[in-house]
Amino acid sequence: MRKGETRSARKTCQILQAASVTFLSKGYDGTSMDEVAAKASVSKQTVYKHFADKETLFNEVVRSTATQANDVIESVTTLLADAEFVEGNLRQLARRLTTMLMNEELLKLRRLIIANADRMPQLGRNWYKDGFERMLDTMASCFERLTNRGLMKATDPHIAASHFFGMLLWIPMNEAMFTGNSNPLSKAKLDRHADASVEAFLAAYGIKPR
Amino acid sequence: MRKGETRSARKTCQILQAASVTFLSKGYDGTSMDEVAAKASVSKQTVYKHFADKETLFNEVVRSTATQANDVIESVTTLLADAEFVEGNLRQLARRLTTMLMNEELLKLRRLIIANADRMPQLGRNWYKDGFERMLDTMASCFERLTNRGLMKATDPHIAASHFFGMLLWIPMNEAMFTGNSNPLSKAKLDRHADASVEAFLAAYGIKPR
Repeated sequence: MRKGETRSARKTCQILQAASVTFLSKGYDGTSMDEVAAKASVSKQTVYKHFADKETLFNEVVRSTATQANDVIESVTTLLADAEFVEGNLRQLARRLTTMLMNEELLKLRRLIIANADRMPQLGRNWYKDGFERMLDTMASCFERLTNRGLMKATDPHIAASHFFGMLLWIPMNEAMFTGNSNPLSKAKLDRHADASVEAFLAAYGIKPR
Repeated sequence: MRKGETRSARKTCQILQAASVTFLSKGYDGTSMDEVAAKASVSKQTVYKHFADKETLFNEVVRSTATQANDVIESVTTLLADAEFVEGNLRQLARRLTTMLMNEELLKLRRLIIANADRMPQLGRNWYKDGFERMLDTMASCFERLTNRGLMKATDPHIAASHFFGMLLWIPMNEAMFTGNSNPLSKAKLDRHADASVEAFLAAYGIKPR
């Protein structure tokens, strides 16, 4: 990468970070390109050079957050797919996933996307595709590999993945969505819920008889 | 009930219906008490006589919608709790629940509550308590009774209820939340998903060996 390109990439990154902080604290309507420029310590022209308008900028914040989240999920599922003992590893993965997905910033962004879904349908569709569905696909590949290795019984790995996430997150995610970030569940409570969900999930999809 | 009371109750009902339609089409900020009054064909003073302010009115819309939804759920779970054959009845219940909860108006209200959760924490907490948790409790009582009758194995009926809802709704509810009401899932697709979820749920919590 040439020096100019490195500088440009660094600026893009700076702007995205500043935009993310601003959108999350002020909402979509409350955020101005001026404020993002000031927070990123660049000129307003620079912001517009990298992102055509506010909606494009918000879309890019969403896309890059989804990509980051998926990278983590891919790395933990790769470990599980090659593991010898499913139960303990799946429990560990479930706890890590919960902690990661119940992150305060991620929850705020999620709420912001839902709030604007009717007004900016493309935004929500992007998050659904790049975030939600890619996560399901990653998990499904992992369950497929474990099934092929004889360590799980998931005839429809994609449905199994949705059941896994649903069992794990139905309570904590809804509680977070509805009650805001005012009273987050404790790590201990989330861990206990993750363990109970893995137990029931493996009763349905594991190979050991119940 | 005296004649004056009947009239007052009817007005409350009229105002709530008008408010619900207005909030859902214009959002919280876009709704004015004037517009609600006009749509309900009452004076603005009458609206304020029944509801102190816009936030109170919105809270009541949320509360009454939650109550209506729960009444339906209670009636269908009562049937299941006394049924002889769990599988077919649970499948029927799952399909009915999905159809009911994926109703366009209900989804819009849900999105509106999430959008305002950080700004009006009490609103989201009310919905979580009167809507989300009451639904879980109703389902949990049903699973407890079926377990006591020897037709299910749910040692923790509350967790089992959250797993049931999570398996059933993780995909359709998130898709609806993120992609708006622009492209709803077909009834046939929702039914197939409900059937697959009941099958996996009973593999974990049913009494028949897999």
